[in-house]
Amino acid sequence: MDKYDKVMDLAKRRGFFWPSSEIYGGVAGFLDFGPMGTLLKRNIERRWRETFIHRHHGLVFEIETPVITPSKVFEASGHVDHFTDFIVECLSCHKRARADHLILEQAGEVQGIEGKTPADLDELIAERGVKCQECGGGLGKVTTFNLLFRTSIGPYSENVAYMRPEAAQGMFTNFKTIFTSMRERLPMGLAQIGKVMRNEISPRQGPIRLREFTIMEIEFFFDPKSPGCELIGEVSDRRLNLLTEKAVAAGCTSPSEVTVREALENKYIPSEWQAYFMALSSEFISELGAPPESQMFMAKLANERAHYSAGTYDQLVKLERWGWVEVSGHAYRTDYDLSRQQECSGQDLSVFRKFEAPRRDKVLLARPKIDQITDKALIGKIAAAIKGMDALRLKNLLSSGPAEIGGVTVRPEYVDFAEGEITVTGERFIPHVAEPSFGADRLSYLALECAFTEKDGRVVLSLPRSIAPVQVSVFPLVNKDGVREKALEIFREIRRSGLIADFDDGGSIGRRYARCDEVGVPVAITVDYQTLEDGTVTLRDRDTWSQERVPSKDLCCVIRGRISRP
Amino acid sequence: MDKYDKVMDLAKRRGFFWPSSEIYGGVAGFLDFGPMGTLLKRNIERRWRETFIHRHHGLVFEIETPVITPSKVFEASGHVDHFTDFIVECLSCHKRARADHLILEQAGEVQGIEGKTPADLDELIAERGVKCQECGGGLGKVTTFNLLFRTSIGPYSENVAYMRPEAAQGMFTNFKTIFTSMRERLPMGLAQIGKVMRNEISPRQGPIRLREFTIMEIEFFFDPKSPGCELIGEVSDRRLNLLTEKAVAAGCTSPSEVTVREALENKYIPSEWQAYFMALSSEFISELGAPPESQMFMAKLANERAHYSAGTYDQLVKLERWGWVEVSGHAYRTDYDLSRQQECSGQDLSVFRKFEAPRRDKVLLARPKIDQITDKALIGKIAAAIKGMDALRLKNLLSSGPAEIGGVTVRPEYVDFAEGEITVTGERFIPHVAEPSFGADRLSYLALECAFTEKDGRVVLSLPRSIAPVQVSVFPLVNKDGVREKALEIFREIRRSGLIADFDDGGSIGRRYARCDEVGVPVAITVDYQTLEDGTVTLRDRDTWSQERVPSKDLCCVIRGRISRP
Repeated sequence: MDKYDKVMDLAKRRGFFWPSSEIYGGVAGFLDFGPMGTLLKRNIERRWRETFIHRHHGLVFEIETPVITPSKVFEASGHVDHFTDFIVECLSCHKRARADHLILEQAGEVQGIEGKTPADLDELIAERGVKCQECGGGLGKVTTFNLLFRTSIGPYSENVAYMRPEAAQGMFTNFKTIFTSMRERLPMGLAQIGKVMRNEISPRQGPIRLREFTIMEIEFFFDPKSPGCELIGEVSDRRLNLLTEKAVAAGCTSPSEVTVREALENKYIPSEWQAYFMALSSEFISELGAPPESQMFMAKLANERAHYSAGTYDQLVKLERWGWVEVSGHAYRTDYDLSRQQECSGQDLSVFRKFEAPRRDKVLLARPKIDQITDKALIGKIAAAIKGMDALRLKNLLSSGPAEIGGVTVRPEYVDFAEGEITVTGERFIPHVAEPSFGADRLSYLALECAFTEKDGRVVLSLPRSIAPVQVSVFPLVNKDGVREKALEIFREIRRSGLIADFDDGGSIGRRYARCDEVGVPVAITVDYQTLEDGTVTLRDRDTWSQERVPSKDLCCVIRGRISRP
Repeated sequence: MDKYDKVMDLAKRRGFFWPSSEIYGGVAGFLDFGPMGTLLKRNIERRWRETFIHRHHGLVFEIETPVITPSKVFEASGHVDHFTDFIVECLSCHKRARADHLILEQAGEVQGIEGKTPADLDELIAERGVKCQECGGGLGKVTTFNLLFRTSIGPYSENVAYMRPEAAQGMFTNFKTIFTSMRERLPMGLAQIGKVMRNEISPRQGPIRLREFTIMEIEFFFDPKSPGCELIGEVSDRRLNLLTEKAVAAGCTSPSEVTVREALENKYIPSEWQAYFMALSSEFISELGAPPESQMFMAKLANERAHYSAGTYDQLVKLERWGWVEVSGHAYRTDYDLSRQQECSGQDLSVFRKFEAPRRDKVLLARPKIDQITDKALIGKIAAAIKGMDALRLKNLLSSGPAEIGGVTVRPEYVDFAEGEITVTGERFIPHVAEPSFGADRLSYLALECAFTEKDGRVVLSLPRSIAPVQVSVFPLVNKDGVREKALEIFREIRRSGLIADFDDGGSIGRRYARCDEVGVPVAITVDYQTLEDGTVTLRDRDTWSQERVPSKDLCCVIRGRISRP
C-alpha cells in the first residue's frame, strides 16, 4: 500500500470520507464525508473564512448564490462555449475517456498538452499508438465535451439551467447591487464558500478530482488605475517558490524562491492584489500541514489558461502518488466577466471614478437651429432627440442626410455643431478582478496525507491543532468506584465550554490512546483514583506522547492553550 | 407596503437578500444572499449546529453528502414515484400552474387539500369555476409533476441523476458505514447542513418557497424496542402549543398548550426523541426572535403526510402576509427508508441487538443422513448445501421432492430434520428514525420579519444579538486631530479579537446610528476628543438607545457581554 491507499483506508475506517453511494457500487467523482471528515472540512472552511474574509471585514464580504443558474449567465461567461474537455470514444467498446489523460497515461509526459487542439491530439494518438484503456480498441476522433451539468427550471423543459462550475459568476452578476448597498467603495472583494459541479469525463483520482466539491473563492474588484494593494506591506518579505511564465515556457520545472517584493518588482506576478492573495495562500496551505518547501506557484502559459484569464498561477503541493497537485488557483480575470455580463444583460455594471479635481473637457456640442425649423411644433421634439444622443454620433449620422431619431425626422440643417467645454467630475469604468480559488475537499485530503505518520507500527495523525476534528478525548481509567462518573462530569464540562470532546471508556488506556492518535485528537485526559482525591487528571499529548498532571479546574484553559499551538 | 414588502425592500437595500440573477430579470424560487444576509444565515446555521449537533457530540454527528445523487437512491426512497405536486395547464395560453394553489387562491380555503387526488381537484376546479390566472382560460386535466431536478453524470446521458430534495437519503445510504466506524452504538443521529433542490412548479412567495435552499436536518436512529430518550428529562416541563392529529381531523385550528411530559403521556407525539427535538426546535425558533405565542406544532393527517412518515408535526410560525408558515418538520420515518435502501441495494443495513442474557431457542435443525447417501463423494457437498440454507425453507423445498441446491441434487431422504436448541445472543433489526428538519433561508427571512420594528419613523432591526450580522460599529466623531486614527486603531483591535466590526466615518453620528440600527448592529462605539485624553469611548445600545462611557481597554470584553445577552 502506498501512502494514498493508507490514507484512504484510514479515511473510510475512521469516518473521514469515502466514495459516495457505496451501497450502490459507488459513483466516481463524488465523496461522502463522515463525522470526522465533516469536522475537519468545516475547520478548514472556518480557517479559510477567518484568513481570507473576516480578517478583511469591510473589504471582503462573504455572499451566497445558488448552484442552479439560468443558462444566460453561463452563455455570457463563456462556459457554455468554452468550459470543455477533450473526449474520445473507443471504436469497438464505445467507452468514452478524456483524450489528454489517455495520452499522458499511455505516452508519458507531453509538454503543453493543455494547450493542444483536437487535431493535435488526434495526431498524438496516431503517432504514439494510444488505444482504448478498457479493451485495447482503436480510438475515434477527438471532440470536445462540455463539463456543465445541465438541468431545467420549472415545468417547461426549455428553461435550461446549469449547475455552476465556479462560484465566481454569482459574484459578477451581483457585483453592482452589492457595490451599491456597501456604499460604492473600491476595492471590494466578494467571497463564496459553496458547492460547485463539473461533469468530469472519467475522474479516477478519488478526492483529488471530484465532480462535486466545495469551492472557496474570492472575486476581488479593484480599479485598474489604482491597482495598489494597501496590505502588500504585510507580506512583502514573504518568500514564495515561483515558476514564472517565462520559466515554464523555457521548460524549467524547478521553482526559484523570491520575495513577494521581488516578484512584483520583476513583474513575475501581474497584480499586487494577486500577489497579496498568493502570500496568504502560502501561509494558509502551510497551516494545513504542507511545508513551504513542498509548495510552489506555477504560471500557466497563455494557451493553457482559462478563457477569462490574463495571467494565472496555480499553487501546487507535492503529494506522494499524484505528484504536483493544484491546491489553489490565482487568476487575473481583468474586466472580462463584468464586461461580458454587462453586454449580455444590458445592465450597466460600470462604476464611477471621481477625478481628483473636476476637469474642463473640450467637447462637441449640438444645438437645434430654431430658425431653420419651419414647423414650430417640432422644435421641442427635435431638441429632445438631439439632447438624447452623443453629438459626434449625431454629426456622423447627419453627414449622410436626414435621419429618423426618436420618432422625428432630423434634417442636417436643423442642427448647429460647435466646440464647447464641459465640467467632468469623473468617468465610468469596469473594475478589474483578482481571483484566489480553493477546493475544500481536496484540502481535506491534503491535510490527511500531510498529517499521516506511522510511529511504533501504528498511525498517528499529526493534524494541525487548529483543524483537528476532535480537540480532546476523556478516558476514565476504570469504569467503577465513581471514576467513570467523575470522568463523565469532566467530559460534560469540557463539552459545555464549546470544545469538541470524545468520551472513550472501552479497552486499555493504550488502545484508547491509539484510537485517538489515529484521528488526530491533540489532547487526551485520563481520570483516575487520584482525580477523586486531589482533582488532578493526566493530560497526554498526541505528538510528544508526554504526560503531566493538571488540576481539572484549569482544564479547559490548558486544553485551549494546547490546541492554539501550531 | 405591508411588512413583507418593507422587509424585502430593506433586505435588498442593505445587502441581506434579493431574487437571484436580477440582471437577467430574475428567476423565481432562487435567492442571492449579500454580505449582511450571508453573515445572518451563517449565524443561524452556527446556532443550529451548536444547539442540535455540538451539544450532542458523541450522539449526533454532522456529515456531508453530495447534492447530485444517482437515480437508484431516489428510486429506492420513493421520490422518483411520489415526490410530486399537482399541475394543471391552461388550455388557451398553455401556462402551467400548481393546481392546489390555484384552487386555494381562487376558491378560498379547502379542508385537507393536501390529501386530494387529481380527480378530486378536477372536480373542485369545475365546481368552483377555477380559471387560468394569466389569461382566464379554461384548465386541462390535473396531473402530477415530479419535483426532482434531473441531470446526468458523465459522458453517457443514460446515467440519470437527481439533485437531492432532502439531505436525509445521504444519511440513510451511509448509516451502516458510519455506525461501524463510530463503534456500533445506538441511538445515533446523523445531521447535515447543505443545499437541496426542489423544482417547484410556480413559486411565488419569495424567500418562503425556494427551489434551492439550505436544509438543516437530523436523521436520528434508535432501537424501536428502546425508544426512550435519555435527555427527555431536560425538556419535560417545556410547554408546546400543539394541534394534535385528532384536533386537526376535527377541524380545530387553535392549539392547546401542553408540556412535553403531557404530550408523551397522552401519546400526542409518537416518539420520545421526536418530542425532544420538538422541544429543542421551540427553543431554537424562539431564539431567532419568534415569540412562543406565535409558534405552534400542527400534526399532519395521514393522507397529507410524506410517503415515508408515520407521524409528522410541522412547526409553524405566524407571519404577517403569509399566515402560518412551516419553519420545521418533525417526521417519524420509522424504518421505512433504511428498509427501502437495504432492499434496493441488496446490502445489509440492519444492526445487532444483544439480548440482556443469551437465549436458548428451539429451532429446526437439518443434518445429512449419511447412510442414505450412496455416492460417498457427494456427502461433503450435500452437507455444505444443507448448512447454507435455513432448515425450515429446506424442509418446505424438499416436501415436493428432490431439489437442486448449490450444484448438487439433494433428495428428501438425504436429510434428517429434528427439533433442537441453539444459543442466541441477540437479533438483527432495522433502526427507527426521528427527523427534525429546517430551512435556513426561510429562517433568515423569519428572523428579519420578527426583528423589523419602526421607531421615530425609521427602521430598527432588533435582531437577537447571537445572530446579528455585524456585532459592533466604530465611529470617529470627527475625521481630524487624530480622532480618526484612534478610532481605526480601536476598530482593528476589535476585529483582531474575532468580532465582526464595521467602521463608519460618513455623515453625522445620528445618520450613522440610523444606518447601523437598520441592519441590527447591537453596539456602536463613538471615539471622540475625550478618548484621546482618558481612553474612554461612548458605547451606545441599539435597543435602548442609551449611552455610557467605557474604557477602551475593556471594550472587547464589554461588547462580548452585550452580545451574549438575548
